[in-house]
Amino acid sequence: MSAIFQNILSHPEIAAIWSDTGRTSFYLEFERALALVQADLGIIPREAADGIAEFCSDVSNVDLEELRVQTEKIGYPVLGLIKQIVHHVNAKTPGYGEWAHWGATTQDVTDTATVLQLRQTVDIITSSLDAIIANLRNLADIYKATPMAARSNLQQAVPITFGFKLARLLCTFQRHHERLLQLKHRLFVLQFGGAAGTLATLPADKALKCQAALAQALKLAPPEIAWHTERDRFAELAGFFALLTGTCAKFALDTKLLMQSEIGEVSEPFYEHRGSSSTMPQKRNPISCAYVSAIATAVRQHATAIYEAMVADHERSTGPWEIEWIILPEICTLTGAALKHTRELVAGLQVHPEAMMKNLNITKGGIVAEAVMMGLAPQIGRQVAHDVVYELCRQSAENNVDLLHLLCANERVMSGGLSAEQLEQLCDPKNYLGLSIEMVQRVLEHP
Amino acid sequence: MSAIFQNILSHPEIAAIWSDTGRTSFYLEFERALALVQADLGIIPREAADGIAEFCSDVSNVDLEELRVQTEKIGYPVLGLIKQIVHHVNAKTPGYGEWAHWGATTQDVTDTATVLQLRQTVDIITSSLDAIIANLRNLADIYKATPMAARSNLQQAVPITFGFKLARLLCTFQRHHERLLQLKHRLFVLQFGGAAGTLATLPADKALKCQAALAQALKLAPPEIAWHTERDRFAELAGFFALLTGTCAKFALDTKLLMQSEIGEVSEPFYEHRGSSSTMPQKRNPISCAYVSAIATAVRQHATAIYEAMVADHERSTGPWEIEWIILPEICTLTGAALKHTRELVAGLQVHPEAMMKNLNITKGGIVAEAVMMGLAPQIGRQVAHDVVYELCRQSAENNVDLLHLLCANERVMSGGLSAEQLEQLCDPKNYLGLSIEMVQRVLEHP
Amino acid sequence: MSAIFQNILSHPEIAAIWSDTGRTSFYLEFERALALVQADLGIIPREAADGIAEFCSDVSNVDLEELRVQTEKIGYPVLGLIKQIVHHVNAKTPGYGEWAHWGATTQDVTDTATVLQLRQTVDIITSSLDAIIANLRNLADIYKATPMAARSNLQQAVPITFGFKLARLLCTFQRHHERLLQLKHRLFVLQFGGAAGTLATLPADKALKCQAALAQALKLAPPEIAWHTERDRFAELAGFFALLTGTCAKFALDTKLLMQSEIGEVSEPFYEHRGSSSTMPQKRNPISCAYVSAIATAVRQHATAIYEAMVADHERSTGPWEIEWIILPEICTLTGAALKHTRELVAGLQVHPEAMMKNLNITKGGIVAEAVMMGLAPQIGRQVAHDVVYELCRQSAENNVDLLHLLCANERVMSGGLSAEQLEQLCDPKNYLGLSIEMVQRVLEHP
Amino acid sequence: MSAIFQNILSHPEIAAIWSDTGRTSFYLEFERALALVQADLGIIPREAADGIAEFCSDVSNVDLEELRVQTEKIGYPVLGLIKQIVHHVNAKTPGYGEWAHWGATTQDVTDTATVLQLRQTVDIITSSLDAIIANLRNLADIYKATPMAARSNLQQAVPITFGFKLARLLCTFQRHHERLLQLKHRLFVLQFGGAAGTLATLPADKALKCQAALAQALKLAPPEIAWHTERDRFAELAGFFALLTGTCAKFALDTKLLMQSEIGEVSEPFYEHRGSSSTMPQKRNPISCAYVSAIATAVRQHATAIYEAMVADHERSTGPWEIEWIILPEICTLTGAALKHTRELVAGLQVHPEAMMKNLNITKGGIVAEAVMMGLAPQIGRQVAHDVVYELCRQSAENNVDLLHLLCANERVMSGGLSAEQLEQLCDPKNYLGLSIEMVQRVLEHP
Repeated sequence: MSAIFQNILSHPEIAAIWSDTGRTSFYLEFERALALVQADLGIIPREAADGIAEFCSDVSNVDLEELRVQTEKIGYPVLGLIKQIVHHVNAKTPGYGEWAHWGATTQDVTDTATVLQLRQTVDIITSSLDAIIANLRNLADIYKATPMAARSNLQQAVPITFGFKLARLLCTFQRHHERLLQLKHRLFVLQFGGAAGTLATLPADKALKCQAALAQALKLAPPEIAWHTERDRFAELAGFFALLTGTCAKFALDTKLLMQSEIGEVSEPFYEHRGSSSTMPQKRNPISCAYVSAIATAVRQHATAIYEAMVADHERSTGPWEIEWIILPEICTLTGAALKHTRELVAGLQVHPEAMMKNLNITKGGIVAEAVMMGLAPQIGRQVAHDVVYELCRQSAENNVDLLHLLCANERVMSGGLSAEQLEQLCDPKNYLGLSIEMVQRVLEHP
Repeated sequence: MSAIFQNILSHPEIAAIWSDTGRTSFYLEFERALALVQADLGIIPREAADGIAEFCSDVSNVDLEELRVQTEKIGYPVLGLIKQIVHHVNAKTPGYGEWAHWGATTQDVTDTATVLQLRQTVDIITSSLDAIIANLRNLADIYKATPMAARSNLQQAVPITFGFKLARLLCTFQRHHERLLQLKHRLFVLQFGGAAGTLATLPADKALKCQAALAQALKLAPPEIAWHTERDRFAELAGFFALLTGTCAKFALDTKLLMQSEIGEVSEPFYEHRGSSSTMPQKRNPISCAYVSAIATAVRQHATAIYEAMVADHERSTGPWEIEWIILPEICTLTGAALKHTRELVAGLQVHPEAMMKNLNITKGGIVAEAVMMGLAPQIGRQVAHDVVYELCRQSAENNVDLLHLLCANERVMSGGLSAEQLEQLCDPKNYLGLSIEMVQRVLEHP
Repeated sequence: MSAIFQNILSHPEIAAIWSDTGRTSFYLEFERALALVQADLGIIPREAADGIAEFCSDVSNVDLEELRVQTEKIGYPVLGLIKQIVHHVNAKTPGYGEWAHWGATTQDVTDTATVLQLRQTVDIITSSLDAIIANLRNLADIYKATPMAARSNLQQAVPITFGFKLARLLCTFQRHHERLLQLKHRLFVLQFGGAAGTLATLPADKALKCQAALAQALKLAPPEIAWHTERDRFAELAGFFALLTGTCAKFALDTKLLMQSEIGEVSEPFYEHRGSSSTMPQKRNPISCAYVSAIATAVRQHATAIYEAMVADHERSTGPWEIEWIILPEICTLTGAALKHTRELVAGLQVHPEAMMKNLNITKGGIVAEAVMMGLAPQIGRQVAHDVVYELCRQSAENNVDLLHLLCANERVMSGGLSAEQLEQLCDPKNYLGLSIEMVQRVLEHP
Repeated sequence: MSAIFQNILSHPEIAAIWSDTGRTSFYLEFERALALVQADLGIIPREAADGIAEFCSDVSNVDLEELRVQTEKIGYPVLGLIKQIVHHVNAKTPGYGEWAHWGATTQDVTDTATVLQLRQTVDIITSSLDAIIANLRNLADIYKATPMAARSNLQQAVPITFGFKLARLLCTFQRHHERLLQLKHRLFVLQFGGAAGTLATLPADKALKCQAALAQALKLAPPEIAWHTERDRFAELAGFFALLTGTCAKFALDTKLLMQSEIGEVSEPFYEHRGSSSTMPQKRNPISCAYVSAIATAVRQHATAIYEAMVADHERSTGPWEIEWIILPEICTLTGAALKHTRELVAGLQVHPEAMMKNLNITKGGIVAEAVMMGLAPQIGRQVAHDVVYELCRQSAENNVDLLHLLCANERVMSGGLSAEQLEQLCDPKNYLGLSIEMVQRVLEHP
């Protein structure tokens, strides 16, 4: 991974989890727990377990260059690692090394390590997600009554509040939180079944006990049955990452649109020189939003690759599994980066209520045409109200004249009996917020 | 949709839900329920509601050709439909037609109709899923002790049972069942908020009551807040369809591999002429498996398109929403078709235990090398056992001689004291099934 | 396909090519040409060829419902169609029917028909592409000197002309035109090889002659070798469609951004009620742009499905091929629709030069800061010029004062000796267009 | 990138091109050429150019850690690099540093560097592609007459030769070669236009000369017009990589299917321990095939992400561009790895003609049923021949008896007058190869 872009298009802590050292550590954690558990159950000698556990307690015991050479030779890193364990243990206590990895297959180690890597990744992502939710709650509350234009098809529609816009987002992130809780139960599961998942090399009476104890040692759920080629667990997480970053990208899109020179309603958090240009001082670029958008695109395509990895042949697949090797590190670091950027965006977002108010007025009243129609309807009839207001709005837009002005000058309108003051009230966007505030409140009170 | 392929690459009942008539029916259901609920709350006149409800009770009242013309003119079908309602109601009871669609926006109707379409779709898919699960339970039970070769990297690895293979799949479909239950709570939600979601055109004191009553009338949950541009609900379902069809495709892949001329362990259900060739009578093609594989590919790419639709601008999006219009009908009919084919496959799968047994023997004992090593280890030492067996396996493969024969002729092996009978036992694949049967049992007993 | 959306998300003429009737017509065209060519070469009796050719001359001879039934039974439509040909020919001239489809395999017919369908589709798309190019040339010429703001990161950057913006697009569509020409040579190729592509059932001395003559009859290139499972030709076209619609979507994106209420520099072609709202008269929605964006998303995911179809097993694939059946009709109709919408957009685009000019001034001179720096550099030194202008731009933005005003009031600036008039010249966006016009010219003159 | 997997899922030389050092070197190459060219044209002082060129001649002059810090601050690496150039040049020759990067914008440097990175990448990939083609030619020639079973729907169909199978592949790689040549003309193009592509900061009379000279210095074509947001060039290459790896994956799929324990017709190149298992000596895993399959999946999804990057806003995009930063390094290293593995596979493929022959006989003659029907037709009539052979094939399969045996025992067949010897000839798969050999020859002679 690029050092230059490590904090931009990656997430250093998550990258560490998926690095050679990180991955190998989790392999060792598996082998260590396996040996200790098997000694407890009398499956392997205690001396073997002690030697194995000792080697596996520290990843710096591993010769990574040798591991690379072996991996290229064999095709998978696990067997090369086992060789090192065996060699090391045998060197100290001859003959005990071979008890390493007892009854396990390469994929047992790899998959369980992956689950442990995903668990750490999910922890980091959860903490970003929690922070995003907390900050959005705060912002939604602060701006719950701050009027702005709703935009539909990129056209100003009717007024809303900025808090209302944020509360929708908040509610979505809360749903993501719920999804994550539910999928964790399915995801954090041990893989341990031997060559074809039947635990055939272990003593039949101890095999399931060993599986249960190993799961407990690693704080994972035991599998109902081997899942070497049933990859829905990982695919579900990848899909969840696509959902999660999709919402981040929606927020980024709205933010970059609101930051346009011609709109200027919010800005990314200010950092000296951030998003600036040396020759175009008028610019304030939505840098983080651009990253988040780009990352979300990559993540959703990655998710699809992981979906394809589900089509795994027989008991241990020939290619589909390797898709995960390529994609999981990428999708995890990218998702981590998107969440980190979003968290920073939400935490430091600069909001410009005065620009929101100014933009509410650029349609010269057009944005409250609906309100005016509704207000006039009881006085002059609904159809007439519609036709008159529609026509006056057209005139307003064409001649760049305030709708209020045209209303006050219109006989039909004035025949309804509303005073100029009442018409002014109808034309004030602040008075046509509907239940924006109540709805924000409802989301904030949502458990 | 092609009539020729309607039962192959589509699902007629689901296609009907997403047809012009189907979609329009759900629009009418929304408008009908809205009018009745608003009359109950005193928001619109009872006479208006009655007239609207009458028109909306029968989709054949709609002039679809006129609706097409209006849709092309306006860009969306809803406004054109409302015009027909208004016109019809006004013709009977002048002035009441305009109360149709009161306080709603185009997307309220469209999204709610989509939710209702998805609910019907999910019902059909659930019934296929239930049938698949029931049949897999049955098959896994029947074949729980039927030995076959496990294949890893498309190479024979060690023996398992066919029931064990199926139980893994069963367990995966059960997880899908759980996922579906969980997402339904998030999916079946009303959309009703007006132009920007604030219900601004309804009387403030009745707006939320109206929303709640409408949700109840349509048997949907009320929204916490508008979700016109928060599309995670649909994206979650699309991702689930990718997961579900991914598992179907895994099953299809295994089936077509097992149907190969050189393997022949299972066959697709037999129908006269199905998958046959007029000039190659030796063929028995895995037709349904091919369909399922192809459909799963399409579904997972469709899911990604729906993920992209999450990046929706502001309050009502400009393009992302239309992605759903294109993709949702496709992904629903395709998923329905994949489930239907899978259901038929599982229901009528032909299993050939004798071929499984025959193939277990083609490696001349190689497939139980692991068992032999384990069996000899206590007698002659683990390392020696490994080296001898490894060498004999090589000889066996090269010279096409039974491993048992070589074992019996080997001094080192015989020095261990195992009898020829005991060696024969070790070399019998049926004796090396591990916990295959127990694990099937465990899955079957799983709630 | 939905009738309601047939002109929105589909293309009726292209849809007809891919309909049951369309597809079957091309099957018949293949069988007819094959029979006639084989009679010419003395491979089959002339009477047989005549009977086959007669039946195959009119698709209405085919019983489509019977074909559906047979297709569901067998799994593919070709064999069922052959049965109808055989039956019909035998009814008139007993014993001659069996000569139909002589030496061909199902996939020969299907693939060649697909090539013919693609050729018709490409013709329609080419005519849209040509029209887009012609209209863009025209627009680029008209607006080559019309100043507008360039936007980088959605921030106003420096001035360009609208013609410059369009010329970039024009140049891209010209590259697409070149690509299409090149790929057509690879795409329009006959498939005809029999069961495994070796033409084994034909007399060895006539087989290649028959292949060549058939290719000529269908105006296709003969294959170098069978390509039943070498699907790069179709995948290349699918990728090209993703490229082509990607450019359409780029244009649609710019257009919808320029149509925003706050910008208003262009509008979609005006049609009465198009993109309007009954209660929000201020709106003018970018309807066609939304469609184009959505379609491009679907097309690029479809392309990926077709890429996956390349991974085809052995001589005739088991699933990958069927991906094409699902996706090709979709990708062709969608691409056709995107091109049609883009063609209409380009043909009727409404351009608002006055709004472009107005927006050029909203940064109060900031947009020409670069020009001012460059202009002052010779007078007061480059570094000083940069620092002063940067500072004055900041003041201008903060206090909403024209940069020109601040420049004239600044001692350092005035010390350089430029007159107020000269400074005004520097601050005029129209004077900082660079080579916009020359570059448009260069593209227009490009062959 | 993982060191462990660097030769498996990546390509070290290509990875170096895309590393921080690699990328930065190309930035320097651009800045160096720009300065020298501008000095030649009298746009900047010669002393400035000399200083800039000196610094830019060696990437080790760059402080990468400082560059990382600046990149994170600004959002892009180019400005931070310019600062280092300026600082260094100013330190030696005060006041000259600011002439660096004259008239260029960040994206000019980045895009041109990317083009140069892609050129080096394409060179490496081309050399793999050439080697694959050469080796396939060789193999196709060697095995042009080696009989094997064609497989359709994973069922044995009719005989072909192994050379015929390879020639199809060869022909496809040759088409890829042609595609690559054509796209290179569109791809290797300079980007140099300044902030909005108009070269506005350069003297109008020298701007285009400068652009042309810079292109020449970098051995690139000059752009017709700026393409900052017209990304079809990169998208075309990404699509090509998807095509190319798609064919590699097709070859990998066939190879792993042919390596199945039950088939064994080819093996991956033999390396000691490669693809072996410590406890399952009978295994010979298709390791490289698995990698190639997995990589192709990732590449095709990456291509789609790059397609999405085409939807770039205005003159410099806000997110779409960054997709390329994430994906291009991945897609290049992955494609490089897939080609490298394929090249090794093709170079060292082990072919087992005897197994091919053995498998040709497992259908007991079924595989030549077509040949037998054709051979009997002149004697006993085509319909009768079909019916009899079809029936005898069924008996042969059911009772595991040779078709020849049944033919000789069948009255109807023998009534035709063919001798037992002639029937034996018909039943010999070697005699039913069609034009396999001629077609290989045709491909080999193809230019």
